[in-house]
Amino acid sequence: MILRQLFDKESSTYTYLVADEATREAALVDAVLGQVERDLSLVSELGLTLKFILETHVHADHVTAAGVLRDRTGAKTAASAIGAPCVDLALRHGDALTLGVHPITVLATPGHTDDGLSFLTGAHVMTGDTLLIRGCGRADFQNGDPGALYDSIHNILFNLPDETVVLPGHDYRGFTSSTIGEEKGLNPRLANRSRDAFITLMNELNLPRPKLIDVAVPMNLACGNAPS
Amino acid sequence: MILRQLFDKESSTYTYLVADEATREAALVDAVLGQVERDLSLVSELGLTLKFILETHVHADHVTAAGVLRDRTGAKTAASAIGAPCVDLALRHGDALTLGVHPITVLATPGHTDDGLSFLTGAHVMTGDTLLIRGCGRADFQNGDPGALYDSIHNILFNLPDETVVLPGHDYRGFTSSTIGEEKGLNPRLANRSRDAFITLMNELNLPRPKLIDVAVPMNLACGNAPS
Repeated sequence: MILRQLFDKESSTYTYLVADEATREAALVDAVLGQVERDLSLVSELGLTLKFILETHVHADHVTAAGVLRDRTGAKTAASAIGAPCVDLALRHGDALTLGVHPITVLATPGHTDDGLSFLTGAHVMTGDTLLIRGCGRADFQNGDPGALYDSIHNILFNLPDETVVLPGHDYRGFTSSTIGEEKGLNPRLANRSRDAFITLMNELNLPRPKLIDVAVPMNLACGNAPS
Repeated sequence: MILRQLFDKESSTYTYLVADEATREAALVDAVLGQVERDLSLVSELGLTLKFILETHVHADHVTAAGVLRDRTGAKTAASAIGAPCVDLALRHGDALTLGVHPITVLATPGHTDDGLSFLTGAHVMTGDTLLIRGCGRADFQNGDPGALYDSIHNILFNLPDETVVLPGHDYRGFTSSTIGEEKGLNPRLANRSRDAFITLMNELNLPRPKLIDVAVPMNLACGNAPS
């Protein structure tokens, strides 16, 4: 399997390129509109055919490249069935998309937003904003729910093998990966904290409103196009 | 083997943490002064003991954390025998440092600077500023030499197996890794270009002088301390 992590400095977003070495079928996860040329040139250089454009959720901090990538490649956009209505494939927990012999398994991990998904492929899980390295996504907009976030992390992600590599949707300090075992033991928001204590903590964060939310969410609900 | 890539946004520098899972012996490669707390906290959280602080070369674009890390951990600093005189271990081509059962093999890859090293461990090579993703380091200061750079890349790095993962010292576009095979075929400065044409290209780049060079190089020659 080919797996590449790509970083957008402006939004500190990680995009992932996953592909099958034999068939050259590929998927991009959480592609950023400003990085379309970079991402398509990598797909082309590696001789890949883009099959799926995946979103872990409707983002509030950057505009997705999904619509443009679909127009330029014919690949299918795919995200949660309760997320952006513009997508080609509406995903539910337990669905699997395949790239050659490699399945990408869909895990419903709501809480940061109600449509949050994680994508498991081999020993790697792309966790979007559900589980971050030593942190987690906030849960105070887009039907976020701290209790649901706690349950997604503890009941879904923390049930994966400890050695599973965590590939987050963002990092703001320069970390690129972690493992499930590491986050179980070291994540300061989650380790040794009860569900109630986690909910209290998340409800008291008082974070500023994301600068781009009023632009990004409507555009992302339209797969990155201007909303009609 | 544990291998983590860490990013410093300000200088777009990649630092690498390499460690043996059993003995927990670790090395940091190209650590950045402004990231000491982040890097030491990761070493501590993972239960590692820092054994080596490695430099691929005397950097012109950021100040090394080597001296501070040595003072705080007792680890040995190590770099080219013709680089910073402050280091504990002066490395030459073919030397090997070991972390538990894992050797880190030293490859002399001069050209960006005369003291350039790459570090090979398992199927990964940390190439400093010698080989970048779809690029290479400039060769117009610190005894840089485009011909030597071409030879280092073609005779040393491109002789590694094609599937070897390239982990560069920097990336400015958000790429995090490549492979030797990919760079052989796709690197626009190197693929299908003769040694003479490469030298001409490099000599005609006319890049601006690095902003930090007059501060960083003297400090890095003193392992990140103020020069005496």
